[in-house]
Amino acid sequence: MFCPRLAGDNASRGDTLTRLTLALDAMGGDFGPSVTVPAALQALDFDSQLSLLLVGDPDVITPLLARADFEQRSRLQIVPAQSVIASDARPSFAIRNSRGTSMRIALELVKEGRAQACVSAGNTGALMGLAKLLLKPIDGIERPALVTVLPHQQKGKTVVLDLGANVKCDSVMLAQFAIMGAVLAEEVVGIAHPRVALLNIGEEETKGLDSIRDAAALLKTMPSVNYIGYLEANELLTGKTDVLVCDGFVGNVTLKTMEGVVRMFLSLLKSQGEGKKRAWWLVLLTRWLQKRLMRRFGHLNPDQYNGACLLGLRGTVVKSHGAANQRAFAVAIEQAVQAVRRQVPVRIAARLESVLPRSD
Amino acid sequence: MFCPRLAGDNASRGDTLTRLTLALDAMGGDFGPSVTVPAALQALDFDSQLSLLLVGDPDVITPLLARADFEQRSRLQIVPAQSVIASDARPSFAIRNSRGTSMRIALELVKEGRAQACVSAGNTGALMGLAKLLLKPIDGIERPALVTVLPHQQKGKTVVLDLGANVKCDSVMLAQFAIMGAVLAEEVVGIAHPRVALLNIGEEETKGLDSIRDAAALLKTMPSVNYIGYLEANELLTGKTDVLVCDGFVGNVTLKTMEGVVRMFLSLLKSQGEGKKRAWWLVLLTRWLQKRLMRRFGHLNPDQYNGACLLGLRGTVVKSHGAANQRAFAVAIEQAVQAVRRQVPVRIAARLESVLPRSD
Repeated sequence: MFCPRLAGDNASRGDTLTRLTLALDAMGGDFGPSVTVPAALQALDFDSQLSLLLVGDPDVITPLLARADFEQRSRLQIVPAQSVIASDARPSFAIRNSRGTSMRIALELVKEGRAQACVSAGNTGALMGLAKLLLKPIDGIERPALVTVLPHQQKGKTVVLDLGANVKCDSVMLAQFAIMGAVLAEEVVGIAHPRVALLNIGEEETKGLDSIRDAAALLKTMPSVNYIGYLEANELLTGKTDVLVCDGFVGNVTLKTMEGVVRMFLSLLKSQGEGKKRAWWLVLLTRWLQKRLMRRFGHLNPDQYNGACLLGLRGTVVKSHGAANQRAFAVAIEQAVQAVRRQVPVRIAARLESVLPRSD
Repeated sequence: MFCPRLAGDNASRGDTLTRLTLALDAMGGDFGPSVTVPAALQALDFDSQLSLLLVGDPDVITPLLARADFEQRSRLQIVPAQSVIASDARPSFAIRNSRGTSMRIALELVKEGRAQACVSAGNTGALMGLAKLLLKPIDGIERPALVTVLPHQQKGKTVVLDLGANVKCDSVMLAQFAIMGAVLAEEVVGIAHPRVALLNIGEEETKGLDSIRDAAALLKTMPSVNYIGYLEANELLTGKTDVLVCDGFVGNVTLKTMEGVVRMFLSLLKSQGEGKKRAWWLVLLTRWLQKRLMRRFGHLNPDQYNGACLLGLRGTVVKSHGAANQRAFAVAIEQAVQAVRRQVPVRIAARLESVLPRSD
């Protein structure tokens, strides 16, 4: 999510870019190959340096490649996988029985160096667990976190994590997320000395859960983190912080609430005036204004920033919404491309060394 | 929140209404009397049968009553209170030291029968604890919950609880909230056989926290509850459920996220086209369309549904946002009026008897 909308993105695109290969879990998500394969073709059209490994059932994937031209096919390869991890499977069960699944094979391709990143719309818990198992966390990080970068009202960006990789978090995990988020904001989003806040239900020190209060105490002892205190959820889009930290349950709820409200607004805006008989010039003007407003609000359309990076791993893994449509899944692929080009894992690891509290 | 926007509200207003008296914690909230007193006058203007007890420091309140006319003054009384509970005080400390505070005295007025309900914008935890201590929960309810009724896209209402009275909830509490919410939806909002869902981070049975999964198992055993499963936060405003249940931390975050996004949309909408030089007719048309859109979205404006009822008590207590402005605090007062007129606590208690699982 954080990648396509950053300054300098366009400048970094072009013929000078090195070729890169991503592994797609083609079977994951609510719609499987019927969404992931057309999205893959769309991504190939968009980026001439990109190659894709489609991991899944060749009998399902091949017919969907009918419209691919010769050039696209030369950058595509199907890697067969016998099974899929169900989206409702318990992560622990799914991981034990993951051999031969599209998700695991896609991650193994990254581990073996055949792909530089993996994109999946499958079971979040299983993806988190398998990614940790196969790609290993960066030194000093206990648990990777799902991170996204939201556009805010001040025309800047806010890094938000965790978005659902860790349903329960203790204070140490929250503090590590804060550090990772700050490094991401500084190294990748380009914010100097980024402000870091914990999401809570009040700004007063006594508010909220023990884990949050303890994380606040921890962060205050870290000179390398510009910790500014608690922030409430109504400040999510106001740009009062550069990094917003919460546990995965709350992060997921927050992001989905935002998405639900944005979708409702956009659909109300679109349907405004529909079905009523009006003068033609009024209809035209209404449409014109609607278009302008849609453009203004469009950057908040969830389809446009689908894909959250699993931060804290030695490799790049992007989780797409399970319910992503073709356009949204293509955006997730683009996130992965940008994360690889920006060398996110390496830069995070390098900075973490100097930022993480030492044990001595 | 649930009261002013229900069918039949207007019909129930008028000269035939009985007089009622509310106690206001005039010192609570971020702005204290400078907001609560003007809001009180506004509420008196709106409802000729209403009398108010303003609990707080007479030296601060009296000057603010300068603009009240004789008739308003006849329905107003200042009840002196020496101190205020700080909004950042730990609830346990605040409750131990609550004697003489405006919040406690306002609740005592309800307990003594001098007022029929209490409204406060003060410390949520302290209000919850003191209300439980002084007014007592309904039989069978362990912990009261903050509840609100949100308008949804299908032009109906969704009852949402808990919104912050209980930061941590076990499965039994969640199940009790579900029952209370269902009774409220049926008895007060007028929805027959209301659908009840638990807020979770996925719709699959294996998702989320243990407390939620256990609450789901409990609710499935209750024939009196129309439990429909989990719902994700992006469904908050879609009308897929009549009652949405979550713990107080998550409920608070969800509601505040929604409010933040709505406020951002309304302000973007309002500022659209500002500062640009345009033809006069274009400016007029833009304003006209903006007005229509604002009306369409206005029902989601947080100021218009401020005030959450503390459900599960033998008396009526309404919590206003701490940051409420005059208009929003007046809405909270109106919530309390409607809750009293609809006899919410009595009706909830009466229905709970037949709905709550018996111990035999």
